Amino acid sequence: WEGEFFPNISYIRYEGPASRNPLAFKWYNAEEEILGKKMKDWLRFSVAFWHTFRGDGTDIFGSSTKRWPWDDGTDSLMMAYNRMRANFEFLKKLGVNFWCFHDRDIAPEGKTLKETNANLDAVVELAKKLQEGTNIHPLWGTAQLFKHRRYMHGAATSPYVSIYAYAAAQVKKAMEVTYELGGENFVFWGGREGYQSLLNTDMKQELDNMALFLKLATAYKKRLGFQGTLLLEPKPQEPTKHQYDWDVATTMGFLQKHGLSDEFKLNIECNHATLAGHSCSHELEMARINGMFGSFDANTGDAQTGWDTDQFLVDIAEATSIMLTVIKNKGIAPGGFNFDAKLRRESVDVEDLFIAHIAGMDTMARGLRNAEKIVEDGTLQTLVDNRYASFESPLGKAIKDGKIGFEELEQEALNSEEAPLPSGKQELAEMVFYSFI
Amino acid sequence: WEGEFFPNISYIRYEGPASRNPLAFKWYNAEEEILGKKMKDWLRFSVAFWHTFRGDGTDIFGSSTKRWPWDDGTDSLMMAYNRMRANFEFLKKLGVNFWCFHDRDIAPEGKTLKETNANLDAVVELAKKLQEGTNIHPLWGTAQLFKHRRYMHGAATSPYVSIYAYAAAQVKKAMEVTYELGGENFVFWGGREGYQSLLNTDMKQELDNMALFLKLATAYKKRLGFQGTLLLEPKPQEPTKHQYDWDVATTMGFLQKHGLSDEFKLNIECNHATLAGHSCSHELEMARINGMFGSFDANTGDAQTGWDTDQFLVDIAEATSIMLTVIKNKGIAPGGFNFDAKLRRESVDVEDLFIAHIAGMDTMARGLRNAEKIVEDGTLQTLVDNRYASFESPLGKAIKDGKIGFEELEQEALNSEEAPLPSGKQELAEMVFYSFI
Amino acid sequence: WEGEFFPNISYIRYEGPASRNPLAFKWYNAEEEILGKKMKDWLRFSVAFWHTFRGDGTDIFGSSTKRWPWDDGTDSLMMAYNRMRANFEFLKKLGVNFWCFHDRDIAPEGKTLKETNANLDAVVELAKKLQEGTNIHPLWGTAQLFKHRRYMHGAATSPYVSIYAYAAAQVKKAMEVTYELGGENFVFWGGREGYQSLLNTDMKQELDNMALFLKLATAYKKRLGFQGTLLLEPKPQEPTKHQYDWDVATTMGFLQKHGLSDEFKLNIECNHATLAGHSCSHELEMARINGMFGSFDANTGDAQTGWDTDQFLVDIAEATSIMLTVIKNKGIAPGGFNFDAKLRRESVDVEDLFIAHIAGMDTMARGLRNAEKIVEDGTLQTLVDNRYASFESPLGKAIKDGKIGFEELEQEALNSEEAPLPSGKQELAEMVFYSFI
Amino acid sequence: WEGEFFPNISYIRYEGPASRNPLAFKWYNAEEEILGKKMKDWLRFSVAFWHTFRGDGTDIFGSSTKRWPWDDGTDSLMMAYNRMRANFEFLKKLGVNFWCFHDRDIAPEGKTLKETNANLDAVVELAKKLQEGTNIHPLWGTAQLFKHRRYMHGAATSPYVSIYAYAAAQVKKAMEVTYELGGENFVFWGGREGYQSLLNTDMKQELDNMALFLKLATAYKKRLGFQGTLLLEPKPQEPTKHQYDWDVATTMGFLQKHGLSDEFKLNIECNHATLAGHSCSHELEMARINGMFGSFDANTGDAQTGWDTDQFLVDIAEATSIMLTVIKNKGIAPGGFNFDAKLRRESVDVEDLFIAHIAGMDTMARGLRNAEKIVEDGTLQTLVDNRYASFESPLGKAIKDGKIGFEELEQEALNSEEAPLPSGKQELAEMVFYSFI
Repeated sequence: WEGEFFPNISYIRYEGPASRNPLAFKWYNAEEEILGKKMKDWLRFSVAFWHTFRGDGTDIFGSSTKRWPWDDGTDSLMMAYNRMRANFEFLKKLGVNFWCFHDRDIAPEGKTLKETNANLDAVVELAKKLQEGTNIHPLWGTAQLFKHRRYMHGAATSPYVSIYAYAAAQVKKAMEVTYELGGENFVFWGGREGYQSLLNTDMKQELDNMALFLKLATAYKKRLGFQGTLLLEPKPQEPTKHQYDWDVATTMGFLQKHGLSDEFKLNIECNHATLAGHSCSHELEMARINGMFGSFDANTGDAQTGWDTDQFLVDIAEATSIMLTVIKNKGIAPGGFNFDAKLRRESVDVEDLFIAHIAGMDTMARGLRNAEKIVEDGTLQTLVDNRYASFESPLGKAIKDGKIGFEELEQEALNSEEAPLPSGKQELAEMVFYSFI
Repeated sequence: WEGEFFPNISYIRYEGPASRNPLAFKWYNAEEEILGKKMKDWLRFSVAFWHTFRGDGTDIFGSSTKRWPWDDGTDSLMMAYNRMRANFEFLKKLGVNFWCFHDRDIAPEGKTLKETNANLDAVVELAKKLQEGTNIHPLWGTAQLFKHRRYMHGAATSPYVSIYAYAAAQVKKAMEVTYELGGENFVFWGGREGYQSLLNTDMKQELDNMALFLKLATAYKKRLGFQGTLLLEPKPQEPTKHQYDWDVATTMGFLQKHGLSDEFKLNIECNHATLAGHSCSHELEMARINGMFGSFDANTGDAQTGWDTDQFLVDIAEATSIMLTVIKNKGIAPGGFNFDAKLRRESVDVEDLFIAHIAGMDTMARGLRNAEKIVEDGTLQTLVDNRYASFESPLGKAIKDGKIGFEELEQEALNSEEAPLPSGKQELAEMVFYSFI
Repeated sequence: WEGEFFPNISYIRYEGPASRNPLAFKWYNAEEEILGKKMKDWLRFSVAFWHTFRGDGTDIFGSSTKRWPWDDGTDSLMMAYNRMRANFEFLKKLGVNFWCFHDRDIAPEGKTLKETNANLDAVVELAKKLQEGTNIHPLWGTAQLFKHRRYMHGAATSPYVSIYAYAAAQVKKAMEVTYELGGENFVFWGGREGYQSLLNTDMKQELDNMALFLKLATAYKKRLGFQGTLLLEPKPQEPTKHQYDWDVATTMGFLQKHGLSDEFKLNIECNHATLAGHSCSHELEMARINGMFGSFDANTGDAQTGWDTDQFLVDIAEATSIMLTVIKNKGIAPGGFNFDAKLRRESVDVEDLFIAHIAGMDTMARGLRNAEKIVEDGTLQTLVDNRYASFESPLGKAIKDGKIGFEELEQEALNSEEAPLPSGKQELAEMVFYSFI
Repeated sequence: WEGEFFPNISYIRYEGPASRNPLAFKWYNAEEEILGKKMKDWLRFSVAFWHTFRGDGTDIFGSSTKRWPWDDGTDSLMMAYNRMRANFEFLKKLGVNFWCFHDRDIAPEGKTLKETNANLDAVVELAKKLQEGTNIHPLWGTAQLFKHRRYMHGAATSPYVSIYAYAAAQVKKAMEVTYELGGENFVFWGGREGYQSLLNTDMKQELDNMALFLKLATAYKKRLGFQGTLLLEPKPQEPTKHQYDWDVATTMGFLQKHGLSDEFKLNIECNHATLAGHSCSHELEMARINGMFGSFDANTGDAQTGWDTDQFLVDIAEATSIMLTVIKNKGIAPGGFNFDAKLRRESVDVEDLFIAHIAGMDTMARGLRNAEKIVEDGTLQTLVDNRYASFESPLGKAIKDGKIGFEELEQEALNSEEAPLPSGKQELAEMVFYSFI
């Protein structure tokens, strides 16, 4: 195949906010500087291979709806090559330098693990060739440990030692090809690391096995010489009833308990946050203040549904609050903004793939522009700082320095006149925030 | 006051399952032995002073509905004495040896902290007298750090240092009176330790302040000589949008991060579990396998409502799975089963207080009896053990002993023939579980 | 194929509560009379062809896990014949006389609608032969209007008139074969009758089109001479964000608005109830008191997950409250108890199919036995009747007869002394309910 | 009292989007015309007396936090007069012409109903005087049938006939004073019309009683000569587990069943929509297409909490979609935008009352401005119209006119070639929508 897969789509250009062209950027201007950094360096967008090139519109009640031009309906190596070529054409036309993949997205499974690995090597070789002379490379790679029936009881948490070994082999290989392709991170999403019922589960053993697996991965990464960041991706539920990496706090606690806090950061997804009962900002901030914000899966859920809808994020207010955290974090490189988002099942035009990504990129860019204004204005930060100012008093400092105990604090309380407390000013804070959107 | 508050209620007796007397136990037989321990020692029931003696039926849309015989509508010391006498009459008639309280439940707030403390001392003196010659004493005490407007922005997480000091003074005093009354534990429920909006919150400072507060509490406990267990109580939301002690995993992670894991255990409430999106069993098991299951708030929520309903738990299947965890934990002393549950707003008869507690006690007792049968039968445990048996193989042991890495596991996977995996047998496990209920 | 598909499974027998045999009934004794009716006539169990014979364990993150003995991996007519034979062997061994099906479950789709209809006719002919000399026949049939990509925008609510016509043709044919097989009901579950986004939807037109479609179905049913009941099945979400037949109340309102209340009843599913934020009992009672309780999809969800898990219902308390409504309704014939429930993805043994159905049947049977006791005891009904007794007073009757207006009621209120209200006695009611479980 | 309650707050003026003054409008310019109507006539803002003048910051775990200048802590008539004066000063300074109230918000309950009515008359007299010479009058009045313990089992659905009469008397009087004050609507929010448990409830009798009550109200309204609209307000839960007016669809179905559809419209609240599992837009559109959109309670909930938070709506995208429905409805007069929203408990400055209302008004005004642009642009409407165009074909018209049945549709389907369906274009629709925000 030498031709184009998207012959009717040209390179997407920045046309500014007044443009009504759906195939142009209105807010994302890659080379423009915001707060001392280019937009493309703040945002480091990445296309998710699985949604964009393997998503066929299947849902739990329906079969596939997409008929992409490069797809011949087989699961052949030739098909895999063509998908990879489509991926690169898409990345170039969109102006995106990163892509993310699972091992099994890009190459078909063979009859044996050996054959599977050979298939993977063949496709990786093509991808390397396609990367040559470009800035394109993986934001991260990962191993798909959830789709095949062998992983139905889990992978690193499978009750069966043979599956544990198979998962290890698969992660090892996925890490190697990620390294070979110049990937900057490696992600673990524990697709079936969890349980369906406590009645048939030994949760302690599963958690211990999972911790050990991550330790082995860490050790192997060093032997391999891979310098990228290892990332865990929290999700509370789905496909299992309980996923062990429930949310940011749970995952950080798990890492800490097993001495792995320094070896991992987190890949945080908005839709997973809301499934866990948190705002997306909560999860990002919780990771940030603990130094664990590694990378971002830029998507959104539907506030009224209880499953992962993986929609492209278009809410500007949400994007603004996300970017406020990213700015406070001074960026998230070597992480980035991976569009772990899929077209709606009913969106079957090739141009929808572009429209969805453009909308997603413009939304984050607009969020960045708004966040810049909020940061430069400073009103919001001042409001927060003022609230906590009393902890900068001598008493506040004595407390923070651990110099006084309950006895001294009791004396303080007994001897002080109580004064009414200041207002929390939440409505004012909201007014200020929205005035920049 | 010398008379009875419940003149029409006699001592509640065990009459066995055939009884239709609402004012008798059908399943709870305090002295009967189950699996080598008396029922009363497995269950260590406790009455929650706040719900039973301060709950007046107020809800967010309605004013009080209860008109208890001992209540004169004032917040006087005399009223406090009478409530305490009613508490002891209730405990004795119910045959329960433990009670739980917040400082402000049992004694009225004065004009100054000094006066408040004096009020508390006066009521504690009476309680001590009433305890004399009985086995009755507090399962735990705690400080109410959420009702007064001074705590509207939090207590240990208040942005105001004066409030931090006040909270410290209050916890110090509450710990002292718990100690004085022979309380076996001291609980921290972070009623307003959380946030309403991230826009006006410095989450890092609040979490650090909270950790420091718990360290000071630990230090003071030792100076005081109090031997009881310190317990944190997880809850995800309500009253704040986000409570920092979200769930068991979050709370354990927080303790660990701040080096407090050995100083605290957890007081786990079923209703809080479901608000966090977990089954009650999940939270109990998660605590148990981490050695953190300290005590239990025996209640339940409504599966269809998004707020804390604090109902008496009457679901036998739920009670059975709770007791399975308690048995695996070999009991939870010095913790116990505190009925953090309230009458429905519309239940205004004095006898309803008894009926509700009897139903709650009988339900847990029935759960214990069922769990005993499940444990003695062994089918369920065997089903679980068989699932994980391959981790007892040489390969399994080598993995668990950390003797092999990804390379060896890969060789194993490459060289093994894949066999179909056994069934997870969840339906069979459910059939077995329910056959004992 | 002449052999058995389940050679290792014998006919399932009633062995009573003491039996520990997973392949026997402990509570369901088909011929035993309860409240004047045989258990099999109260319960009218039905096997759902789709879950039991087409469910392969696929979920949104995973491919198939089951390898059933009759399955050759093709979608051929021969395969369809074998599946149908397996269905009848399963029904006979389980002792169940009803089955439910979608048109596309039982026969493969052809290249044209004509060919598809011919395939369907061929399989229906076999099914008729297999039914001969047995009591077995469909509880209901239905048309699968959600799986094929042609229905991605809806069927009766598709924006495309060609799809509307196709759906009509499909329902017509499905109704005909249901009639031919002696089916007692015909179900409409609006799999994609709903929307994903209001932004691209004309909700009024879709609802009007749907109403018209149901009218056409009603008219055709009469021309066909089909005497069975037409049933709508409420579900709030999934696969679409909003399904028009959201819950019982919504569906009844829709039918009423379009003058269809007398032509339809409802097929109610527990799992759909909980997804809609209702208890299963609420939905059943709401239908019952409006004379709309037509049939029951016996399953359950997971209280902590936000999607349809379609589990076999094993909760005895839930089953008891369901059966209380069924008894109040004097049974639900010509409806029945269809097991719209699937094995967990990890349950891959053929015997799991039997175990799951046996557990489901025993649970409902146990619920029936408990409900009988509650009804015969009468305490619970008396408690309710007493609460409403004042509406049997002269004033109550005058109100109910519409004889007095606001003026007279105001006089009544002005002239009466207010007395404290009785207790709602919810805890007592719960104690009584659970004492029979 | 002759002075000002808000001496430091001047009349709020429109200063345009560039203003950073928290006490000025940036988007709401009352006299400016949008799509042929003044902003104040599209929006018809109303202040909710209960939140603004009776809300004291109490929540389920905390006592009051507000100390408003006009509040002397009593529940006296003098206090009621002062609150009413504060209300009018607030309305005037804010530039709002409508207010909404419950009977018991504005006047204290007496020892008898007669005395209570007299109190109400006295305050109403003052309010009338304060209204003189202004355009200010109630958007709607209502009766508070949920706070007093007499209503704990419901009002129109109380099992006790005496309470039913009392509720009738109270609604009668509330309707009279609403009429007297020139109120344009009268609202029924069934605060406790629902149940806590089905075990002690006769749902059929309660629903029938409620329907009868509404009929009596309708009849009395006519005798009284009140021309305003009667409005029901849906809410799914809280305070009861199940509120009978669950959502828009349920409430419309109930009205229809009882022949009340022409007598009532709906007062729709965003926060109630989300509690029911719907988007706010869904509820508004469902009412609009059924001709039942009567009035709007302008607030919002928190997407992550399961209770009514009644926050001021500040989300611009939400406001835009609300205003799109309002424009399609050609406005909602005689209904309006009532701020059924309260300050956060921690917001205790008098200026917070102004800031919150200004933010709420500006948000809706901004939504109106955005919606105007979307309507004038027309792209979104064209996208929708095109999707449904095939229903304007001869076949489409024949279907809609009821001229053809299943037989003809089947012929159509059998004889047509199937073509791939167009894309749903959801991502494009979202891109267009957000480009105007």
